[in-house]
Amino acid sequence: MERTDGYGDPTKVMVAVNESSLKGYPHPSISSRSAFEWTLSKLVRSNFSGFKLFFLHVQVPDEDGFDDMDSIYASPADFKSMKERNKIRGLHLLEFFVNHCHQLGINCEAWIRKGDPKEVICSEVKRVQPDMLVVGSRGLGPFQRVFVGTVSEFCVKHADCPVVTIRRNANECPQDPVDD
Amino acid sequence: MERTDGYGDPTKVMVAVNESSLKGYPHPSISSRSAFEWTLSKLVRSNFSGFKLFFLHVQVPDEDGFDDMDSIYASPADFKSMKERNKIRGLHLLEFFVNHCHQLGINCEAWIRKGDPKEVICSEVKRVQPDMLVVGSRGLGPFQRVFVGTVSEFCVKHADCPVVTIRRNANECPQDPVDD
Repeated sequence: MERTDGYGDPTKVMVAVNESSLKGYPHPSISSRSAFEWTLSKLVRSNFSGFKLFFLHVQVPDEDGFDDMDSIYASPADFKSMKERNKIRGLHLLEFFVNHCHQLGINCEAWIRKGDPKEVICSEVKRVQPDMLVVGSRGLGPFQRVFVGTVSEFCVKHADCPVVTIRRNANECPQDPVDD
Repeated sequence: MERTDGYGDPTKVMVAVNESSLKGYPHPSISSRSAFEWTLSKLVRSNFSGFKLFFLHVQVPDEDGFDDMDSIYASPADFKSMKERNKIRGLHLLEFFVNHCHQLGINCEAWIRKGDPKEVICSEVKRVQPDMLVVGSRGLGPFQRVFVGTVSEFCVKHADCPVVTIRRNANECPQDPVDD
């Protein structure tokens, strides 16, 4: 039994989170943090028992190993350890969000999936059936969007639940808006 | 001073509402009611003092008077009375939402504007600066969308705040999905 505010099951909010493209793991991206902070301050507010948060982190399979340019691969075990390392990094990212919820007393779950973020987010929405999905967005212009694609736009169109897109604050944007 | 839940200013949620295309005024459309019910059950829940709702109803200027086919217009005063009548109908629509909030003890405001709904909603978002905008949607397929346009898609792209689109339940859809 979940604790609730007495108004039925808690509202299930899924938040898609990723790592900072500048600082790397375990730092959350600016847009993930914005989405999380918005969820806490504007939705959950003081109603901690009325919401349950679901943090999904999708890791893109690193097919060419660019993340590990400095490593030496001499055996299958080396590749296995690379995969382990990535998973651990992902867990440290999720730790940020789970710890924060724990401190506030908000029920939550967090997990990692591999694949194309936009496809995986939509298929996890089908499975978990949240009441809403919160995704951060870099708020790119049409020109930048063509090159980087946007997960948020795809989810708004294809996810099987209401989706809210949270843009970063202008004052938090890195020099290159494609960074996050 | 607003009453709040102690977590700063209440979260300002703007809800765009319109009349039923089948039953006419003062009945709210299915999608407006869905958007409102979702806002209450999934966002506000029991935290009545933590939210303030803003109901905006946009009336499309009825240039050819089709709504009043049975009326006789003999003087400028007749046209004035038609406009008055439309306004009163709009107020009765808003009454549904305001009464409901009042019963629950949720702070709210409601008002009518004239113009193109999608443009007016976005300009009112600029003025009121809500924390989020909730719009109902008929959930039309691409074929139907071409002919009726969708206010919700325009708002998702152009409104200056996070926007959440609530689709009608499948079991509430009228025979012709363009009706609402």
